[in-house]
Amino acid sequence: MICNNIGVNSKNHITFSGHDVCELAKKYGTPLYIYDEQRVRENCRIYKDAMDKYFPSALPCFASKAAAFKRIYEIMKEEGMGIDVVSIGEIYTAMKAGMPLDNAYFHSNNKTDEDVAFAIENGVGYFVVDNAEELFAIERICEKACKRQKVLLRLTPGIDTHTYEAVNTGKVDSKFGSAIETGQAEEITKLALSMNTIDLKGFHCHIGSQVFDSDTFLRGSEIMLDFIALIKTKYSYEAEELSLGGGYGVKYVESDPEIDIAENIKQVSEYIKSYCDKVGLNVPKLLMEPGRSIVADAGMTVYSVGTIKEIPGYKNYISVDGGMTDNIRYALYGSEYTLFVANKAADEANFTADVVGRCCESDDIIQPKVTLPKPERNDIIAVCTTGAYNYSMASNYNRICRPAVVFVSGDRDYLAVKRETLDDLVANDI
Amino acid sequence: MICNNIGVNSKNHITFSGHDVCELAKKYGTPLYIYDEQRVRENCRIYKDAMDKYFPSALPCFASKAAAFKRIYEIMKEEGMGIDVVSIGEIYTAMKAGMPLDNAYFHSNNKTDEDVAFAIENGVGYFVVDNAEELFAIERICEKACKRQKVLLRLTPGIDTHTYEAVNTGKVDSKFGSAIETGQAEEITKLALSMNTIDLKGFHCHIGSQVFDSDTFLRGSEIMLDFIALIKTKYSYEAEELSLGGGYGVKYVESDPEIDIAENIKQVSEYIKSYCDKVGLNVPKLLMEPGRSIVADAGMTVYSVGTIKEIPGYKNYISVDGGMTDNIRYALYGSEYTLFVANKAADEANFTADVVGRCCESDDIIQPKVTLPKPERNDIIAVCTTGAYNYSMASNYNRICRPAVVFVSGDRDYLAVKRETLDDLVANDI
Repeated sequence: MICNNIGVNSKNHITFSGHDVCELAKKYGTPLYIYDEQRVRENCRIYKDAMDKYFPSALPCFASKAAAFKRIYEIMKEEGMGIDVVSIGEIYTAMKAGMPLDNAYFHSNNKTDEDVAFAIENGVGYFVVDNAEELFAIERICEKACKRQKVLLRLTPGIDTHTYEAVNTGKVDSKFGSAIETGQAEEITKLALSMNTIDLKGFHCHIGSQVFDSDTFLRGSEIMLDFIALIKTKYSYEAEELSLGGGYGVKYVESDPEIDIAENIKQVSEYIKSYCDKVGLNVPKLLMEPGRSIVADAGMTVYSVGTIKEIPGYKNYISVDGGMTDNIRYALYGSEYTLFVANKAADEANFTADVVGRCCESDDIIQPKVTLPKPERNDIIAVCTTGAYNYSMASNYNRICRPAVVFVSGDRDYLAVKRETLDDLVANDI
Repeated sequence: MICNNIGVNSKNHITFSGHDVCELAKKYGTPLYIYDEQRVRENCRIYKDAMDKYFPSALPCFASKAAAFKRIYEIMKEEGMGIDVVSIGEIYTAMKAGMPLDNAYFHSNNKTDEDVAFAIENGVGYFVVDNAEELFAIERICEKACKRQKVLLRLTPGIDTHTYEAVNTGKVDSKFGSAIETGQAEEITKLALSMNTIDLKGFHCHIGSQVFDSDTFLRGSEIMLDFIALIKTKYSYEAEELSLGGGYGVKYVESDPEIDIAENIKQVSEYIKSYCDKVGLNVPKLLMEPGRSIVADAGMTVYSVGTIKEIPGYKNYISVDGGMTDNIRYALYGSEYTLFVANKAADEANFTADVVGRCCESDDIIQPKVTLPKPERNDIIAVCTTGAYNYSMASNYNRICRPAVVFVSGDRDYLAVKRETLDDLVANDI
């Protein structure tokens, strides 16, 4: 199985964390997002334990854009994770979940004055400042409120990870941060150091998502530590914190590599320690921002099969009762997924088809050219590893209600986000 | 100007249907979707008048997936348009707007039994039946309800319009409909004719969206009329209705062609009349399904500028307070748009930048390489021709609230859809 929380039971049904997903589909309806609570926690602990073990001081922050709803923040709080938030909507959701904001890191390339005021008012621990305009906005609001704000500065180290363009955020040419190469990183550091209301704690970079080699983090660390050393020499300021952003890659299909996250973190820590020693720095508090690798394999989406269409000489289509409204990742990125007919789990896979959604749009493809046991109407299709960027990117395109989010935990299953209703769709219509 | 409802006033501000969009931004906040009511109505009338004039019987049906909210359906009702609906969410919204459903055509490649029951119960005029499973589902439900349901059958004429893959829905290899070429169209016609609960009214095809040449519709009509003639000969059944789907292209940027829709409809009508004559058919009631061409140029989105980033030797970025959450079309399709700095409308355009959104994602681009007057923080950016597939595809990615929808009409401006609030975001969270 693509992930060890997926199995097959005696009814020939797919199980997720031991739960029969066909039973969950029957109980809660389809389409349905299912999360494995234990797996979310385990994924947190892989980062937490390794970072605690290998660094003098460290904190993994859940990149909550991967999956932002109240229940996730409750779990993050319980697991002692920090959070990376990118909007006041995420901050508000975390607050509603009772998450303290001391370890919240507020990102965004474009915080409005209202965003800045909201975050400061509500005690967001850190701003990850993208640009000078943001520093000025923080200063204006802090001066009024007689506050001082902890910040990291987001820098672009100029690393091209050769990942897909859309998830490659570390190169110089980026809407995010200030480039080291162009001197703009040093400029904004000087500016931050000159401001009384700004408590500069350190620097942040984000090299990319879906990173499978620790080499990327090593190169990123080296560039950032060189910068920290330069700033120390020139301005007698030594950064206390360094965030490497990102998180490790997730296995969506069998051909994706496996990655030993703890071992990778160990390598990064050894490299950082020895590099700090070399350039005469204290080892900074290290932050990472895993999102996808915390929730992706803790999620599964189940659909009911509707139409099965065979077009002789062309192609077959299996239509399900969801689609790009609940998972836009194939349409956007050509993302790969592993699928099962959940009620024919171990049957022979001999029917090749595009699994498509119900939207009135040709682009509405969950996954092309999948070979499965031939399904019938009302069979259940399970799409694995959908815990990241599926619920969070969902839309009401075609005026389709967004699915419920259900958690399984031990013997228990429970609702975390209610299914949208027809009345929800018109709630804001005048 | 890209569209004649856009202008510049004495304050050097962009106007939309005569309204200063900077004033609207101030009054309602940004990001903001603005619709020009008069333009929506005019676009309806172009189709309605031409189809009434050139066909013995005809009806344009608004493809409501382009923009589905209550106010739009109210206008469609007043303009005497039919509607193409693709989900019970759209049906429900139309009902809440007081739109009678007699002239509602219910599409979707994958209607669930619940969808079929809901639509029949609520008196949806027509099903545009995609496949045999759907016919059986209608039969089951109609038998129980002692009803007979009017249907069109969706066929694929096998035309490849060479438009972008995602909006090319007329070719044989499609998740939609039954192919004429493979004999499947004839099979489903026989099946429909054999069912007592099915009142077969005719056939539907959808060749693609953004059609600029009437040739495409002529080729589509010919194939469909040949099919209708074949069915008449073999089964003594003559279709009363023919839907050609689609709608004409919309001008997003100056290089897009202008199209005279009325003239095109006239050509299609002449062709159809003479072709019917040739093959011995009565001219069927003709349906078209314009969506984009009804609402696209009746819409504009305005944003506030946040960060302006210049990376020497690389690129410039203008970040706005919306992005792929309210307009995902560049990320999905590479769609082109025309932009203005609304408060510097006629200033010299000498600053080239990517206009990007506020999402924590590199892919969040409204439009790359745009040359504009150099903006400052809090300037207003207007993106034109965003009335179709912007609001309807909007998401809460990054937990960002969806914008309000405001209409302008004569001297009046009014809210049609309220801006989402932070509380809306957590409304379904347990």
